[in-house]
Amino acid sequence: MPNRTVFFISDGTGITAETFGNSILAQFPGKRRHIRRPFIDTVEKALTVQGEINATAAAEGVKPVVFITLARDDVRDILTSAECQCLMMDMFGAFVEPLEVEFGIKSNHRVGRFSDAAKSQEYNERIEAINFSLAHDDGQSARNLEAADVILVGVSRCGKTPTSLYLAMQHGIKAANYPLIPEDFERGQLPSALAPHKKKCFGLTIDPDRLSQIRNERRPGSKYAAFENCRYEVAEAETMMKRHQIDWLSSTHKSIEEIATTILRDIRPDRLTY
Amino acid sequence: MPNRTVFFISDGTGITAETFGNSILAQFPGKRRHIRRPFIDTVEKALTVQGEINATAAAEGVKPVVFITLARDDVRDILTSAECQCLMMDMFGAFVEPLEVEFGIKSNHRVGRFSDAAKSQEYNERIEAINFSLAHDDGQSARNLEAADVILVGVSRCGKTPTSLYLAMQHGIKAANYPLIPEDFERGQLPSALAPHKKKCFGLTIDPDRLSQIRNERRPGSKYAAFENCRYEVAEAETMMKRHQIDWLSSTHKSIEEIATTILRDIRPDRLTY
Repeated sequence: MPNRTVFFISDGTGITAETFGNSILAQFPGKRRHIRRPFIDTVEKALTVQGEINATAAAEGVKPVVFITLARDDVRDILTSAECQCLMMDMFGAFVEPLEVEFGIKSNHRVGRFSDAAKSQEYNERIEAINFSLAHDDGQSARNLEAADVILVGVSRCGKTPTSLYLAMQHGIKAANYPLIPEDFERGQLPSALAPHKKKCFGLTIDPDRLSQIRNERRPGSKYAAFENCRYEVAEAETMMKRHQIDWLSSTHKSIEEIATTILRDIRPDRLTY
Repeated sequence: MPNRTVFFISDGTGITAETFGNSILAQFPGKRRHIRRPFIDTVEKALTVQGEINATAAAEGVKPVVFITLARDDVRDILTSAECQCLMMDMFGAFVEPLEVEFGIKSNHRVGRFSDAAKSQEYNERIEAINFSLAHDDGQSARNLEAADVILVGVSRCGKTPTSLYLAMQHGIKAANYPLIPEDFERGQLPSALAPHKKKCFGLTIDPDRLSQIRNERRPGSKYAAFENCRYEVAEAETMMKRHQIDWLSSTHKSIEEIATTILRDIRPDRLTY
């Protein structure tokens, strides 16, 4: 019966432990109680958590599942010891040690990716990208579009904004977004601000049914939200993207993570090193 | 010599493989070339990637490191076979199998966390939280603040906006943010919109030096950016938070991930189940 308590324990934020642990646990049915214990970086804190784990095991009669990302050996030893009543998923233990053998050097036991990140260039670029994407949300500004890595285009409420922010936050991509609106369809032309940047445009589309549903949550009963209008706008936007050879995909059944991954794969912004 | 090519291969977005792989590789010095191969969900695609891996091994004279998250056995078998010249980091293999034994059931071999997420309630809540955080960025709207899970407060440019968006995007938290401005300090009072919601306020502060530097990038030479003014605003903001018993932390040396993790740990928004 996989309805267990799961601990995510890390000397950093625990984001890696949790992301990875959740994708492992998604392979099994059942609801689980999640307990996060970030910033466990001393022997004392580790002993406290060990106490929590053992109390849970005693109360529930089954061993909790414990995902750890711990770089310090003294902290890790406490949780991986036989006194800790759990099913231990030691992510560094399983993978760092084989790499030490292959590389022929010892690991530097640095804590996770997000530690003291505030000082790194990569981190500052991510923050700058978030600011850029916010300033260029929904066609707010056509200024400085040449600095964009990618410009998402599509009808209102097709998913451009969350995808842009995700690209900025996760990948440090300067993602602008620009709506295609009925005036553009009447003129039969892309918004003029986009014309010089067609190569970095990427389109999002969406099923008219779903679009109508989303728009109705915002403006119930409006013409804007009506199915007929949504069908018209989506068809016009797709025609326009086809005419201008702008790649696009449908957001209807895709998460922002999947859309962002596809955009990165297809556009390969110049400034990405991989 | 750890300057290797690293592949991240997944039948989904590869985000889990990449996040986890990077935190493992951060334990070792050296620069690496990263190659992402998302959406590898057929035998044919797996054979193509195997060809790339072997070509890389032949060209570089050392085995590439390969992180995989692959749920399908037939796809995984190709990459974990002896014909694939790599150092294989099989994340599901290492952890799913012990869980199958412990739980006494077979895993359901679902692909990653982000697949077909567009339909899930959790996903829709995240998107709703992003929209909420955008609508309540920088005190734009005091409407509906009672729906916020957390309200970040602090002086202009101390990190409220990216932290709010991160909380929304990663954790589905409705995070509003509200600036503390000179007028508030002159009146000696919290903005009136915040008064009924003090319990869910969380403060951010920042070293005046760093704040002055950030503000100077935006408005060089302004009074707004002057060190003396930054010192005044930060001191006043901290006094105000202390008086109203609002917990706070400094963003100066912390990433948005670390700030968000601390907020979640301390505020424990009611609607979180863990």
